Amino acid sequence: MNELVRTRPPFVAVIGDGDPRGPDAHRILEWAEEVGQLLARGGAVVVTGGLGGVMRAASHGAVAAGGETIGILPGSNAAEANEYVRVPIATGLGVARNLVVVTSADAVVAVGGRHGTLSEIGLALRMGRQVVTLASWRIESDQRLGGPRVHRARDAREAVGVVLRLAREGPVEA
Amino acid sequence: MNELVRTRPPFVAVIGDGDPRGPDAHRILEWAEEVGQLLARGGAVVVTGGLGGVMRAASHGAVAAGGETIGILPGSNAAEANEYVRVPIATGLGVARNLVVVTSADAVVAVGGRHGTLSEIGLALRMGRQVVTLASWRIESDQRLGGPRVHRARDAREAVGVVLRLAREGPVEA
Amino acid sequence: MNELVRTRPPFVAVIGDGDPRGPDAHRILEWAEEVGQLLARGGAVVVTGGLGGVMRAASHGAVAAGGETIGILPGSNAAEANEYVRVPIATGLGVARNLVVVTSADAVVAVGGRHGTLSEIGLALRMGRQVVTLASWRIESDQRLGGPRVHRARDAREAVGVVLRLAREGPVEA
Amino acid sequence: MNELVRTRPPFVAVIGDGDPRGPDAHRILEWAEEVGQLLARGGAVVVTGGLGGVMRAASHGAVAAGGETIGILPGSNAAEANEYVRVPIATGLGVARNLVVVTSADAVVAVGGRHGTLSEIGLALRMGRQVVTLASWRIESDQRLGGPRVHRARDAREAVGVVLRLAREGPVEA
Repeated sequence: MNELVRTRPPFVAVIGDGDPRGPDAHRILEWAEEVGQLLARGGAVVVTGGLGGVMRAASHGAVAAGGETIGILPGSNAAEANEYVRVPIATGLGVARNLVVVTSADAVVAVGGRHGTLSEIGLALRMGRQVVTLASWRIESDQRLGGPRVHRARDAREAVGVVLRLAREGPVEA
Repeated sequence: MNELVRTRPPFVAVIGDGDPRGPDAHRILEWAEEVGQLLARGGAVVVTGGLGGVMRAASHGAVAAGGETIGILPGSNAAEANEYVRVPIATGLGVARNLVVVTSADAVVAVGGRHGTLSEIGLALRMGRQVVTLASWRIESDQRLGGPRVHRARDAREAVGVVLRLAREGPVEA
Repeated sequence: MNELVRTRPPFVAVIGDGDPRGPDAHRILEWAEEVGQLLARGGAVVVTGGLGGVMRAASHGAVAAGGETIGILPGSNAAEANEYVRVPIATGLGVARNLVVVTSADAVVAVGGRHGTLSEIGLALRMGRQVVTLASWRIESDQRLGGPRVHRARDAREAVGVVLRLAREGPVEA
Repeated sequence: MNELVRTRPPFVAVIGDGDPRGPDAHRILEWAEEVGQLLARGGAVVVTGGLGGVMRAASHGAVAAGGETIGILPGSNAAEANEYVRVPIATGLGVARNLVVVTSADAVVAVGGRHGTLSEIGLALRMGRQVVTLASWRIESDQRLGGPRVHRARDAREAVGVVLRLAREGPVEA
């Protein structure tokens, strides 16, 4: 059984827009790819929602660096996964798959993102997963709260440095 | 069948902490009850997560004003609903029930709230439901986004005025 | 608060095909309507998946007898509910809404039905809800199991008699 | 990108009791382990619910034969997975994770099993996944139905032979 005595690598979810548009789209996709690459180099498994845009770019970066990628799909057909997803998980859950994307990870990076990404940030915090954001949502509470937090990063390198540390610390009490 | 030709009343979800603490707790519960009361007077059905705190206060307010209340419970036992829930829906979904709370409503009011409430705000916007906040999360995007929005209100009366208008307009493209 | 000290009426889910076909279709829809009517007369709230076929027929029967009807919809638009649903719950869950249909009920009647109905029977038993079948699936285990059971009925009257008794007894250990 | 041009291996879910008891328990666990082993030898990835009993035995068999194993967990903690799960997916969905177990697979083998397994068989058929049973539920419809079917096998070898063929054919219209 010796081969089973090993530490599981950290799982990090990269979340963001499936079809980013506007003046920032190019930069966001570059960041997502760099985040995926740096996560793989850092020994993390990259979890995404398995579709296009930020999900595809992050998976591409991870695979190019020799990393492992998991795609948690909303639909019921594994063939919907982008070509860089090594382990496609077809859930059939629709939007409720957003809960699985973040719960299956030890910590989360958001790169850009629209309303779906905000829902994933909220669900991540609810499940005790800390979140690092890059050009994404700015979120503050009118109340003083403990528990998981949103950490803003300025570039891909900082985001990955922070999220790898948070992922190794693991979930916190929400 | 004439009795069936009628307009469905607006469904408004009131979301917030199941056990608010700290210096604002009292004010938040008062606001939640007032929101429930004003929603019922405005002809809306009040949807909540069916448990305590803000959910119970809002349901209490609605029932006291002669209104209808629905509680979308995370567990599998309808008896978990607070005593002001007229229609308990035991989902067995755990945190994924948060999606049902907001999707079953035409618009959403958040009164205070912690991480679970943030997840519901995110899911609401993802499903095209507009959100009004009272002493809750402040959320802005680093990008210019269309679609559903978060509207900050200063008191219960303003919150209900805005959310009733939004609920009548119905969901928007997310 | 005296008006709140009351026994909740039993909630009974009626499940079956949204578009029954074949030689039995007419009989199945008649049975579903009769089941809905008898449930309402027996004081039960009728829960369905809110769409057509058996769900619509059962809701029709219940409303015609002055009963209350809840429709747990797979989509995110309450307007998808059939016209006999008094309380539409848009879940946005897709097939996962099947879990909510049965968990929100105290017991379940299956009238005819295809694969979706079988999934609901399985989920009902998993959640400890007993099931009465009419012209539906025949299910037996190769092992001796305790817990909730499937009861075959020969007509609508027998099905409702049995399910009302089971609903009043409530869920059992699965 | 040449390394990406490859056929995904078939994903086969093995479902069954997390804690089998009674006179058949030993045989069922042996069958589950043999099913996992033969699936891995046949080139399939073994998907389970990630917990004990049949799930653990099937994962053990697969890993011992050098195969890949995925565990779709009901809880939110990947550490709940048994030690033979290579890719743990913590869903936080509770019983609703049963939908993900079968939807993420191309076909399903049930070995023994109680009510949860029946719910997975029903959900599998609903999602168009064909099912092979070993000492499990016997399911027939009172109506003539097309679509996915339940195939009864007499031993592990027959079950794996049939399910590998069905998995390669892929999902059918439910």
